[in-house]
Amino acid sequence: MASSRQLEPPSGTRDFLAPELRHRERAFETIRGVFERYGFGPLQTPAFERIEVLTGKYGDEGDKLIFKILRRGEHEASGEADLALRYDLTVPLARVVAAYGSRLPSPYKRYAIAPVWRADRPGKGRFREFVQCDLDVVGSTSSLADAEVVCAVSGALDALGVHEYRILLNSRRALGGLLEAYEVPEDLGGRVLITLDKLDKLSGPEVTAELEERGLDPATAKSLVEDLIAEDSVRRMRTVLGNSEQGRVGLAEIDQLLALVVDRIGGSRIAFTPRLVRGLDYYTGLIWEVVAPECRDRSPRAGVMTVSSSRSEDLTCPHAEDHSGSSGSWRSSTRVS
Amino acid sequence: MASSRQLEPPSGTRDFLAPELRHRERAFETIRGVFERYGFGPLQTPAFERIEVLTGKYGDEGDKLIFKILRRGEHEASGEADLALRYDLTVPLARVVAAYGSRLPSPYKRYAIAPVWRADRPGKGRFREFVQCDLDVVGSTSSLADAEVVCAVSGALDALGVHEYRILLNSRRALGGLLEAYEVPEDLGGRVLITLDKLDKLSGPEVTAELEERGLDPATAKSLVEDLIAEDSVRRMRTVLGNSEQGRVGLAEIDQLLALVVDRIGGSRIAFTPRLVRGLDYYTGLIWEVVAPECRDRSPRAGVMTVSSSRSEDLTCPHAEDHSGSSGSWRSSTRVS
Repeated sequence: MASSRQLEPPSGTRDFLAPELRHRERAFETIRGVFERYGFGPLQTPAFERIEVLTGKYGDEGDKLIFKILRRGEHEASGEADLALRYDLTVPLARVVAAYGSRLPSPYKRYAIAPVWRADRPGKGRFREFVQCDLDVVGSTSSLADAEVVCAVSGALDALGVHEYRILLNSRRALGGLLEAYEVPEDLGGRVLITLDKLDKLSGPEVTAELEERGLDPATAKSLVEDLIAEDSVRRMRTVLGNSEQGRVGLAEIDQLLALVVDRIGGSRIAFTPRLVRGLDYYTGLIWEVVAPECRDRSPRAGVMTVSSSRSEDLTCPHAEDHSGSSGSWRSSTRVS
Repeated sequence: MASSRQLEPPSGTRDFLAPELRHRERAFETIRGVFERYGFGPLQTPAFERIEVLTGKYGDEGDKLIFKILRRGEHEASGEADLALRYDLTVPLARVVAAYGSRLPSPYKRYAIAPVWRADRPGKGRFREFVQCDLDVVGSTSSLADAEVVCAVSGALDALGVHEYRILLNSRRALGGLLEAYEVPEDLGGRVLITLDKLDKLSGPEVTAELEERGLDPATAKSLVEDLIAEDSVRRMRTVLGNSEQGRVGLAEIDQLLALVVDRIGGSRIAFTPRLVRGLDYYTGLIWEVVAPECRDRSPRAGVMTVSSSRSEDLTCPHAEDHSGSSGSWRSSTRVS
C-alpha cells in the first residue's frame, strides 16, 4: 500500500473536490461579473513563459521562487531550463501589450483570474499554486483609471459579501515627500521606507530601533515613527507633506482619487494611510491595499484573501523597453488562496 | 526594439484575447452544464504532480513529452526534476481516488475541464498547452455508467451546436475475438491492431502491406483488411466474432451499450465500428470515439475538437496498485484546441 504522502498533491498545492471547488468557482464568477460590468475584458496567457521573459523581473528573491521547466529531448541532460511557470499575471500582460500593441483597445482594460506558481516555503495559508485576480488599465494616465480599478475591486468585495474591509491609500510621491520633509539621507530612503512598512506588524519602538540599525539618526527615527503612529497621523502628515514639492504632488493625487471614489464606495471604506509602502521596486504612483479582517481570520482552507494594488507608470515589457504604449498601469492583485 | 518572436507566447501555446476567450469560456460553460445535469461533479488538481506520479504511466513516447520542473534552491544545479506538469487528467484522478478513497461518493462521477501540457512538436492544430474535458465514473462496472458517459458527451456536443457527429464504438474484447477468429499469432496481436487502427487514414492496400511487413501472412492480412473495409463490414464482423468466446462477450457489451443509448441519442449517432482500436495500452473494455467533421474542418484557431473515450477496468493509481476501489473507469477526453 502506498504511503499517504505519495498520494497527496505536491507540497503547497491542493486538490479541490466538488463542494469546495463549486464554492471557489462561484466566487470567481462573482468577481468576473463585477470586473466585466466595469468594462474590463478577460485575457488568458499560457501557464509558462520563455524563461528570459520572467527572470530579472521580480528581484533576486523572486527569481529564486520561479518554477523552471527543464529542456526536453536531447537537451534534458544539460539540466538547463528554457521555460518557467508564470510567477504573476503582470509580466505576461506586459508581454501581450508589447506583442499586440495597437490591436488592443486603448486604454486596454483587462482582468485575469488564473493560477500563478511560486516556490515559496509553504506555510499556514501560503500556497505554491494560488489564484490571482488582476485588474489593470494600460495606456491611460487619467485618475479615472485609478478610480475605476478601486471601485471595481470594492464592488467585487461587496458582491462577494465581504462586509468589513477598508482600502488603505498612499502614493509613492507622498512617500518621497515624507523622506524629504524629515531630511532622510537619500541613500537611506529605500531602506527607511521598507522598515516603515512594518508598522502594521511591529510596535513603534521596534520600528524605531530598526530604523536606527539601518543608520537613521535616532531623533529623526523617533519623530518619524511617532508622527506615523499618532492618532492624528493623517493631519500631521498633511502638514508635513505640504512643505515638500513631491509631497504636495502626492497629496494632490491622493485627494483626487478620494474625490472620485468616495461617493461611490463610501467615505469610511478608504483612507489616506501615510505609512503604507509595499512594493517599493515596482510601485511608482498611487499605492493601495485592501484590509479585510474577516477574510484574514478565516481558516486558510476556507479562502484567505489579500488585495493589494498600485499604480505603476512603467509597465515595461521584457525585451521591449522602448514600447511606449505600455505606460500607465494599475494593478489589483487579489490573491484568493 | 524586441524581435516579434520574443514577444510571442512559447511555441505551442497561445494568448487568448477577450473575444476568443469569451467564446471558449462559453463553450466550456456549456459542456460543464451538461456534465452537471448528468450528475457529474467537478474536480481540480494542481497543474503539476510529483514526477514519480507521472513517469511510467504514458509509455516511453509519452514520458518524453512530459514537461519536467527543475528542483529549486541548492538543488537547482543538480539539473534534476522533482515535479512535472500534468500530461492528462486521468493520472491525477487516479491519485485522488487512491488518496480520498471512501470519502468520495461511490460511484465517483467526476468531470474536469482543464489544461494539460505535452511537449509535442507543435503543428497545425496541435498545441503544447490545450484543454481536456474529462468525464469519468469510478467504482462501477455497470453498463449504465458507460451509457451515462456516452449520453453526457453526446448531450454536450448537441448543446455546443455540433450538428454533424458520429460515435464510433468497439470493444477491446471484440478486438481480441477478431484476432482469434483470423488466427493471428498471439505475439503479433498488438502490432496487428495498431496497424488496423490506421484504416481511417491509410488505404486498404497500404494497411495490408504494413500488416505483411509486421509479419502477418499475406492471405490473413488481405482477408482481414477486406472484411474490415467492406460495405457490410459490420455484418461480416458480427458473424466472425460469433465464432469466438471473446468475440461474443465483446459483441454483447457493444449491443448492451447500444440498447441503452440509442433511444436517447438517436440510432444514426452511434455505430459498432470493428476497425476502431486507439489506445491499446490503456483501454480494456469498451472503446469509443466521436468523429465530428465540421469541427475537424474548422481552422485550428477556431477550435478543433476530437473526442475519444474508452472503458478501462484498471484505473491503477501511481503507488497504490492495490487500491481496489479504483476499478471501472470511463474516460472521455475532449480535446478543445
